Amino acid sequence: MAYTYEFPRPALTVDCVVFGLDEENLLKILLIQRNLAPFENQWALPGGFVRIEESLETAARRELVEETGLENVFLEQLYTFGSCDRDPRDRVVTVAYYGLVNLWEYRLKAATDARDTRWFAVADLPPLAFDHEAIVQLALTRLKGKVRYEPIGFELLPEKFTLTQLQRLYETILEQELDKRNFRKKILKMNLLIQLDEYQTGVSHRAARLYRFDPEKYRNLKKKGFNFEI
Amino acid sequence: MAYTYEFPRPALTVDCVVFGLDEENLLKILLIQRNLAPFENQWALPGGFVRIEESLETAARRELVEETGLENVFLEQLYTFGSCDRDPRDRVVTVAYYGLVNLWEYRLKAATDARDTRWFAVADLPPLAFDHEAIVQLALTRLKGKVRYEPIGFELLPEKFTLTQLQRLYETILEQELDKRNFRKKILKMNLLIQLDEYQTGVSHRAARLYRFDPEKYRNLKKKGFNFEI
Repeated sequence: MAYTYEFPRPALTVDCVVFGLDEENLLKILLIQRNLAPFENQWALPGGFVRIEESLETAARRELVEETGLENVFLEQLYTFGSCDRDPRDRVVTVAYYGLVNLWEYRLKAATDARDTRWFAVADLPPLAFDHEAIVQLALTRLKGKVRYEPIGFELLPEKFTLTQLQRLYETILEQELDKRNFRKKILKMNLLIQLDEYQTGVSHRAARLYRFDPEKYRNLKKKGFNFEI
Repeated sequence: MAYTYEFPRPALTVDCVVFGLDEENLLKILLIQRNLAPFENQWALPGGFVRIEESLETAARRELVEETGLENVFLEQLYTFGSCDRDPRDRVVTVAYYGLVNLWEYRLKAATDARDTRWFAVADLPPLAFDHEAIVQLALTRLKGKVRYEPIGFELLPEKFTLTQLQRLYETILEQELDKRNFRKKILKMNLLIQLDEYQTGVSHRAARLYRFDPEKYRNLKKKGFNFEI
């Protein structure tokens, strides 16, 4: 089969920067090892060509499942990268997405399309194929900006978490220490957390109380003009 | 000439939501009237097909010049719209940009490619072609969010402006009244404005002092971790 057009068309792909936070509070990114040229054997973001009959987000989710087994991820569009020389084969424009995954409860399934799939610490990434380093940098900047004004950080935590876990998450992403008293005051004052009658288990120190984020309450408050802010 | 590919490819376009603020503090958007089907004679965002040898932003700037005469505009990528049915002719994915223009000093040149070019008040837009209404809505949301955390609002003002003009701009975009004393305190405390030894001319009331935004100072402060906030 061949497809013919009056004017030349760039190829269109999607790429996903999926973030996870591990139990030691390391921020990680999911990479795949390419098994085809160009950049064969090099690490890259999961992604691939957009099919003619699927939307951009559908393509991103399909590629994530095919290449990493990841399903039902929090996913938002990041930016579209379209400089003329970003792929040595052809003019390829890519719509980048970023995703957030709770690594506490998540385990990698066997990858199908890719040679290998692995979580890498953001501070220790291997050299990446194409312009994927620039895409990762922009995703980091977006994450850092967005966690302060939207409650997306909870996507990186298990459903039930301690206030210390939540603070560590913010400290890791914002790359700065936060004052414990101020942080707790700020977060509790917004009234978005449900205090549970449950405590941590399996810890050697005093078990801390568990909380849950209330997304419905946030949606209602937001409609009334409320601004989330850390 | 014809171009043949192994797999079908969507067509790729760019579209621009250009905002201007007029002397009566009305927020406006630049629209063109289409002279070709589909949606012939209907109003639409300026934009068009990305050429194979140009980057996305180059395409957006070229289309703006060709269709509206606008040059050297503040322009940022907004979002890429790619649902399968957004264009009745073909699968077309569009990378949307938003721009900010100082309407005080700007005048529309004669359009070439479009039947007519006109500024419309945001509150009083005509029905738009394709999914351009959704693109405009997202641009408005982005502008509203972004003016609070980045000093992009100055792009809508003349180089020299009064504090009242600046406050009106924020009130218009944020759609809320601001307390004059608080607003001035906040904006002056950030030390980003240069107080000039010049005053308004041609006003019937007492002439107010003029200020200028200092972008270099902002860049330096930002490097040191400063966050703009209104």
